[in-house]
Amino acid sequence: MTRFALTLEFDGTPFMGLQRQAHGPTVQQAVEEAVESVTGEQVTLHAAGRTDAGVHALAMRAHVDVAKDIAPFRLMEALNARLRLAGWPIAVLACEEKPEDWHARFSCTGRSYLYRIVNRRAPLTLDQGRAWLVKGPVLDHEAMHRAALALVGKHDFTTFRSKQCQADSPVKTLDRLSVRRQGDEVLIETGARSFLHHQVRSMVGCLVLVGLGHWREAQVGEALAARDRQALGHNAPPEGLYFVAASYPGE
Amino acid sequence: MTRFALTLEFDGTPFMGLQRQAHGPTVQQAVEEAVESVTGEQVTLHAAGRTDAGVHALAMRAHVDVAKDIAPFRLMEALNARLRLAGWPIAVLACEEKPEDWHARFSCTGRSYLYRIVNRRAPLTLDQGRAWLVKGPVLDHEAMHRAALALVGKHDFTTFRSKQCQADSPVKTLDRLSVRRQGDEVLIETGARSFLHHQVRSMVGCLVLVGLGHWREAQVGEALAARDRQALGHNAPPEGLYFVAASYPGE
Repeated sequence: MTRFALTLEFDGTPFMGLQRQAHGPTVQQAVEEAVESVTGEQVTLHAAGRTDAGVHALAMRAHVDVAKDIAPFRLMEALNARLRLAGWPIAVLACEEKPEDWHARFSCTGRSYLYRIVNRRAPLTLDQGRAWLVKGPVLDHEAMHRAALALVGKHDFTTFRSKQCQADSPVKTLDRLSVRRQGDEVLIETGARSFLHHQVRSMVGCLVLVGLGHWREAQVGEALAARDRQALGHNAPPEGLYFVAASYPGE
Repeated sequence: MTRFALTLEFDGTPFMGLQRQAHGPTVQQAVEEAVESVTGEQVTLHAAGRTDAGVHALAMRAHVDVAKDIAPFRLMEALNARLRLAGWPIAVLACEEKPEDWHARFSCTGRSYLYRIVNRRAPLTLDQGRAWLVKGPVLDHEAMHRAALALVGKHDFTTFRSKQCQADSPVKTLDRLSVRRQGDEVLIETGARSFLHHQVRSMVGCLVLVGLGHWREAQVGEALAARDRQALGHNAPPEGLYFVAASYPGE
């Protein structure tokens, strides 16, 4: 058996998320079927993160174990050909052999996300399904950035956790959460060893309330301290969220 | 009558181009129908450029003359609502009143375009229909940039002109043409008072031949000097091309 690490880019629009579901297409199923059509083997895709329906990835990391003797480059090319043939918007950007104890999910020591907001009145055209359109007034991105600082560090993130979250503990250490403006876009970047289910979208939702002036800056920290899902504003929609990168020791 | 200047963003994918055609949807038809459904008037949309099928725009400038008494902001909002309802990926980013002698096409003194190439082996996902995928070897963007300099200035661009081009003269002054790399993207930016039909895509096609090492750098200048369409390499596909901006005196 050879363990192959895959770097995946995908448009999350047609998928019910990364992880296999009983009903509806997923990134996991699409990639596993592509591997099977290349190798004849039924494999399990393990990924660094489990993105929701509609969430995109610029460089998701994952792995599969394959018995067939195949070079990484040939496997990558064959997977891209099969994925394209099947019509799935998934691309394998890189493929390399890894030792057996390297695990895309359990060896991962850092995950980063980008959230794209387009802040204007006009509807989206080229960015349809690629960003969250916030029509309201001009977002105060500086207030959003200041409010975000309350979330950085080690905290109980119960407020920002979905009911379906399977993590053992709501305590996570958020390494960074920054907000900047680029023309009519407001870009939110965040990184941590790991995140709770819906954590990024929940944090973004609250920051937008601050940016719109509906929440005081201090309310973000107050919502965190409440450790109560009821204190949450609302989740930002999935289409603005991008899994950007996963990091591993020694890389 | 009031002359309204419109700034349009559109995804060119579903259109046969900007200019009205006997068969198939165009940006012009979609906007004219939206104006009619708002004002009850049959208008003609005049635009700064006539983009081909599949070409996008970030800020196309255009105008319509309307008899109905309506504020620019209200017209913009109503047009966006109608365009969205009709399912067209066109957004009106700005709308303002202009004097009668202001003409989106004839008053325009500068047009600029961006061409996006993604230079990698893996197929496109999020950028599908938004960039040209050049799989080949790594493009030598510095050689492309040097070769491009031969085209800057006042020249007879017959080589880079389509058979359908309706311009009176093939002589144009190219103000700038630059090539740079940003990660796995190669971005080509160009500006001129006006361009011939297919000129940008023809220039990009030749520059890519240089970037791939199929053409010597000097061949771009030689093709220009030949003043012969047969000397052309090939046109770059439309989906990588974006109309970026039009400029007007006094703006």
